[in-house]
Amino acid sequence: MTRRVTIADIAAAAGVSKGAVSYALNGRPGVSETTRTKILAIAAEMGFVPNRAARSLSVSSAQAVGIALRRSARTLGIEPYFMELISGIEATLSAGSFGLTLQIVDTVEAELEVYRRWWAERRVDGVLMCDVGSDDRRLDFVADLGLPAVAVGGPVEGARLPAVWHDDAAPCREILEYLHALGHRRIARVAGFDHLLHTAIRDSAYADTAAALDLEAMETFHSDYTGEQGARITRRLLSSAKRPTAIIFDNDVMAVAGLGVAHELGIHVPHELSIVAWDDSPLCRLTHPALTSLTRDISAYGAQCAQALLSIIGAEPHEDRAFSVQCRPAQLSPRGSTAPARA
Amino acid sequence: MTRRVTIADIAAAAGVSKGAVSYALNGRPGVSETTRTKILAIAAEMGFVPNRAARSLSVSSAQAVGIALRRSARTLGIEPYFMELISGIEATLSAGSFGLTLQIVDTVEAELEVYRRWWAERRVDGVLMCDVGSDDRRLDFVADLGLPAVAVGGPVEGARLPAVWHDDAAPCREILEYLHALGHRRIARVAGFDHLLHTAIRDSAYADTAAALDLEAMETFHSDYTGEQGARITRRLLSSAKRPTAIIFDNDVMAVAGLGVAHELGIHVPHELSIVAWDDSPLCRLTHPALTSLTRDISAYGAQCAQALLSIIGAEPHEDRAFSVQCRPAQLSPRGSTAPARA
Repeated sequence: MTRRVTIADIAAAAGVSKGAVSYALNGRPGVSETTRTKILAIAAEMGFVPNRAARSLSVSSAQAVGIALRRSARTLGIEPYFMELISGIEATLSAGSFGLTLQIVDTVEAELEVYRRWWAERRVDGVLMCDVGSDDRRLDFVADLGLPAVAVGGPVEGARLPAVWHDDAAPCREILEYLHALGHRRIARVAGFDHLLHTAIRDSAYADTAAALDLEAMETFHSDYTGEQGARITRRLLSSAKRPTAIIFDNDVMAVAGLGVAHELGIHVPHELSIVAWDDSPLCRLTHPALTSLTRDISAYGAQCAQALLSIIGAEPHEDRAFSVQCRPAQLSPRGSTAPARA
Repeated sequence: MTRRVTIADIAAAAGVSKGAVSYALNGRPGVSETTRTKILAIAAEMGFVPNRAARSLSVSSAQAVGIALRRSARTLGIEPYFMELISGIEATLSAGSFGLTLQIVDTVEAELEVYRRWWAERRVDGVLMCDVGSDDRRLDFVADLGLPAVAVGGPVEGARLPAVWHDDAAPCREILEYLHALGHRRIARVAGFDHLLHTAIRDSAYADTAAALDLEAMETFHSDYTGEQGARITRRLLSSAKRPTAIIFDNDVMAVAGLGVAHELGIHVPHELSIVAWDDSPLCRLTHPALTSLTRDISAYGAQCAQALLSIIGAEPHEDRAFSVQCRPAQLSPRGSTAPARA
């Protein structure tokens, strides 16, 4: 193991003071441009790596971004969404030499406490907040703290933070119009947590579109996104006297579970039941038939969220921190699980 | 936002020097026990939170553990294994006030560079190394660096690091004996990456057991763990003249894909084909029929790996860092996807 190159080594090699090396390395005034260039060249040549702890003290940066996730281990494990999101976030952060710090929490209180501690101890320079709620007190909490943060979801009205979001309403209209064109009139939806903002947005988009299309039935059942609940709700729906001819699931895990229940009950997909999934992970193409799905690039979405956060880290408090980034909405990818309705 | 309490504030309130406060807070000699107790009480009362960057300098600890994963975003998203492992690791770390830093890399070289940089910049106090290979140069690399590390897998012969591992051979024998008892004589296996240590251990366990049971056929096909490759191999197997009556998959995603292919070809599971999966994520219970699987508690495994790492972080180099923790092997959970073979 070679000894680490220090500022003193660089100062000696460059024939300048340690203070001058420090000014040059931290991009501060106090040395001429010629000297700065010379010092940086020598530092690079000597393989100097700044000690992060020392650097944190001098530039007040942890070079890390935090995510506190309020989901159970089991949900996290099985939902491709989070890991795809994280991989996109991580790719952007590591390109900017930022680390990603992850913490799983049980309650909102625990989550707020994590933000407070992370910021007090300068463990992170900012946070990404997932699972944005319809009435989300976390947003004001982090804004009050002064902790740079980006909401992964929206749009958030009156927010004091940037939000990066998709239009959730347009894809809902697209699905219903597509199923209507296939002749479906009795449609059900297995939705996610009802306290989440995007669930509420989808709820009203489906209700409005169903009314406009004059569907015979368009019922929504909220769940916790797990396959277990998805299967239970599907089983009840398919056992009812007037069962739907199409079911829309708010994530892919529940859609796979729903397909399993149809197999179990001997109901043919797509001839007797059409299935549509959201968040087109590879899971949707592993089943038979493959699942028609609303496709979006979740990894790219994560990258955009991370970029928004990096853009406000280090920005002065008076700069606009409450901008909003709208991403491309999800697109319908029709596959084998949807077909014309039989009378 | 309230101003942060500093060591100077505590010194003023306690009527002692800043040096005394620093000694007391860092548990160092230099102050009497009475003074230490008084200072700690005042610090706690004033809501003092140590600045982590300053603390890192003084105690040389980043209070963080790193994981560099060499897997594509798509694999990570769909494999429940990693997120379950990470949730177990994270729970243990956060109980010990350690953060988890995550980075996704493309190549071994990039991974080694991440370890070098993390350690040079003291971004982490140690690392967990997943996907242990049969001949894994990462292990010597981190040992040479002096970076505390734990191998998530094993047993690793001659290792200079601790390894936390499961017995992979016993479950292989159990599966084959179970399928043999059900009358299966032509069995195939869709395995994972062939360079991984646990794949090699399973390869020989299956070969030995198949020979002992005098099976008609026991072929193994290596893959990249994705559903796509799992489906492709299964389709080829089931289209062959002498197709197997049972297929064992090395992860759950490939098993779900294999079940999809059986549906696609009109081959009834379990009457015409038995399917066994590894790593019993909830996915295995969402399909119809539910998948017979080798069950292990991956979240608990992650927790054990994190505990092993925390136990060596801060330990002196001369202490034994090459211990080995053997976890409970996976257990067979028979479900609807296995049945007696038909002639």
